[in-house]
Amino acid sequence: MPESLLNKRVDAIRRLARRGAIQALAKVVATTRAEDLAAAIGQLARNEQRLVFGQVRADTTAADLLVRIGDQDFLALTADLPVERLVRLFGEMEADDQTDLIELLPEDKREAVLARLHGEEREQMEELLGYPPDSAGGIMSPLAFRLREDITCRDAIAAVQEASDHELVYYVYVESESGQLVGVTSLRNLLTHPPSTRLSDIMTTDVIAVDAHTDQEEVARIAGRYDLLAVPVVDDQRRLLGIVTVDDVIDVIREEAAEDMLLMAGVGEEPSDSAAGNRLSNASRRLPWLLVTLLGGIVISEIIRQFSGVLAADLVLAGFIPMLTGMSGNVGIQSATLTVRNIALGRLDVGVGARLGGEAITGLLLGVVFSVLVGLYCMLRYGDVHTSLAVGIAITCNTTAAALMGMLVPLTLRRIGIDPAIATGPFVTTAMDGVGVTVYLGIAAALLSL
Amino acid sequence: MPESLLNKRVDAIRRLARRGAIQALAKVVATTRAEDLAAAIGQLARNEQRLVFGQVRADTTAADLLVRIGDQDFLALTADLPVERLVRLFGEMEADDQTDLIELLPEDKREAVLARLHGEEREQMEELLGYPPDSAGGIMSPLAFRLREDITCRDAIAAVQEASDHELVYYVYVESESGQLVGVTSLRNLLTHPPSTRLSDIMTTDVIAVDAHTDQEEVARIAGRYDLLAVPVVDDQRRLLGIVTVDDVIDVIREEAAEDMLLMAGVGEEPSDSAAGNRLSNASRRLPWLLVTLLGGIVISEIIRQFSGVLAADLVLAGFIPMLTGMSGNVGIQSATLTVRNIALGRLDVGVGARLGGEAITGLLLGVVFSVLVGLYCMLRYGDVHTSLAVGIAITCNTTAAALMGMLVPLTLRRIGIDPAIATGPFVTTAMDGVGVTVYLGIAAALLSL
Repeated sequence: MPESLLNKRVDAIRRLARRGAIQALAKVVATTRAEDLAAAIGQLARNEQRLVFGQVRADTTAADLLVRIGDQDFLALTADLPVERLVRLFGEMEADDQTDLIELLPEDKREAVLARLHGEEREQMEELLGYPPDSAGGIMSPLAFRLREDITCRDAIAAVQEASDHELVYYVYVESESGQLVGVTSLRNLLTHPPSTRLSDIMTTDVIAVDAHTDQEEVARIAGRYDLLAVPVVDDQRRLLGIVTVDDVIDVIREEAAEDMLLMAGVGEEPSDSAAGNRLSNASRRLPWLLVTLLGGIVISEIIRQFSGVLAADLVLAGFIPMLTGMSGNVGIQSATLTVRNIALGRLDVGVGARLGGEAITGLLLGVVFSVLVGLYCMLRYGDVHTSLAVGIAITCNTTAAALMGMLVPLTLRRIGIDPAIATGPFVTTAMDGVGVTVYLGIAAALLSL
Repeated sequence: MPESLLNKRVDAIRRLARRGAIQALAKVVATTRAEDLAAAIGQLARNEQRLVFGQVRADTTAADLLVRIGDQDFLALTADLPVERLVRLFGEMEADDQTDLIELLPEDKREAVLARLHGEEREQMEELLGYPPDSAGGIMSPLAFRLREDITCRDAIAAVQEASDHELVYYVYVESESGQLVGVTSLRNLLTHPPSTRLSDIMTTDVIAVDAHTDQEEVARIAGRYDLLAVPVVDDQRRLLGIVTVDDVIDVIREEAAEDMLLMAGVGEEPSDSAAGNRLSNASRRLPWLLVTLLGGIVISEIIRQFSGVLAADLVLAGFIPMLTGMSGNVGIQSATLTVRNIALGRLDVGVGARLGGEAITGLLLGVVFSVLVGLYCMLRYGDVHTSLAVGIAITCNTTAAALMGMLVPLTLRRIGIDPAIATGPFVTTAMDGVGVTVYLGIAAALLSL
């Protein structure tokens, strides 16, 4: 359903939920797809969510819905469910979704659900739980459709007709006798070759596969680069463990892009996607990174204090402090954003030195342009050579330093094993404020004492 | 090929290109996939790129490569190609890729290529060129696999076996006699039903489709929400025009996420992805948004000048200016980032008022916490009630205002039809610097005159 229609539906659902018009609500819910209900849930308050979820009758729909909503919403909606219902709902989910959700449950509930799941399902889930959640193993579905290489197209089609519970029968993975992934072909290929052809004769042997411990971001990059609908996951013996399907790849790309953006701004994790999100937790998530700004600000106030003689002698200098910090802060953020992007795209694995140099030159170019502009303004406005020179020189120094620091902070974070995006914003701007003010007032002091 | 292997290959290619070891280079190029060559191209200097591209012999590989590289790199590599070769290369591409690339060519070359393409291909391309490049029509492939609803599974399979040039035969779209899209089924469904079953009996009639003018971002959201491998595109008569395949959806998601991030930081468009990118153009792309900071900074310097009496009376006040602007700038960026995210996710289409209120409360909470901390520090350090009060009160006012402004700026930009992400960073930080300084010094002036 297009966005505009969906929004009308969400509005209708919310109005009915708010009015407590249960019967009408039940009717609307019954005619709405699980995917749309999930989108609606994200825009409702907690009690409205419960009311809507209560009207979902079919277990398949309820399961589909739970798989698609935010973690906090999932926990809230399942908090009061009897374990039997929860087990039934988990039974309707695919293995990779089961794994994602069961990890969210409180331990006693998790144990209770695991204990009641069918043997095979439990084994699968326990295997998947053994992989880090953001690795290929953690997001794969174990239900890859696989056939032996000596099978004919005729038998392969028969196998496709019998297979029922596989995520996606588009790629057909081909295994050797010893169970190694040796090839891949497509359902269509099975149809366009003579029925007696063996899979080994029509398969592509150059299969792109990833190790179970590969980071999900790399899996997504590989799927994107080779336009794959699914990426096979293998163990160190190259045995097929499962597949990461393209819908999960899309989720990863969305997640990682959002993560970088939110981390950079120092907002931390993506906040609860429902309107029911807690203000206090939203504030506390943002607080630590602002503390960086605060402590930095105190240090900077001490630095400025050291220069109070200079400021007292030329009060015009104080007026340009926000421009200088704003300028270097924004240049730093620009560089940091480009760097975080380039790291995410794997572009900074080679040739870092040249890029650092390039960034410094960009900063220098920007600095020179703005130095001239501001210096001229300052000269015309105040007719004071010292102040104009101090402002101008400081801007050139600061934008160059900011461009470099914007690149070095994320690179350094990555080098020491920290996500390069984390709070790059607050770190870079605060550090640049300190450097900027010191350079500016230092130059002014030197010029004044000349 | 995993990232680490790919990087080794890129390193090898670059070393050979730099040494001009043509024969060895040709060998490596011949054994590298087009996708990997494209990734390598992105990390090479312009002359190295030309050398590598020159070694690509097969037209299919060359076409695959051109489709996958950055726009600037495409233009550079095709600048010296004879029109005949260019036509051959375009002939190897899918219609949607052809359209994307032909739009990049200079007009005379574009006309020359269009004139030499086959009639059907040219018609298709001209049709696609009629849609905005970032609409469903602009990114769709016209080659959707479609069958009439009265056809049997047996005949449908025969049709699949004969179809050769369709993007993806996974979904089978079903049309009514009058050519309207009435259903969808899968290749697998054709196989699992008796051969004489008619498509109308096995198809899903509730087909999710988009209009050709739907924005690509919405197409991507729809594909993601319903886990579709392809989204059918229809005209206003609900006739099937083409499909947007999931690989294009992935490109859109990547593009849009990057766009938001880069726009917010005021970096403009994604810069050329090759190391060959021009420094001057990189600098000039970032310059206009910094001009906002510069002009804002001049205004702020005038504001501060109005308060020079207050500053002269209490020089400690000047020291806290960077902390105040840094604090409100970062809170503003946090709010703006969350807002841009929420707009992108379609979460701000309903309930904006409540979210604005929530954001203001978050800002207030943060402000109160930091006010107390900084006020106490200021009191202990300088023992001056006036300064401590001014700093404390200003922080609370400013973070609340910053939280609100961070939300209002992108919302207002969207309301007046501008991309809400555009330079939100520089706008919000500069505006907050101005507001923050005025509030701060205004409060200080009021307190001092008490």
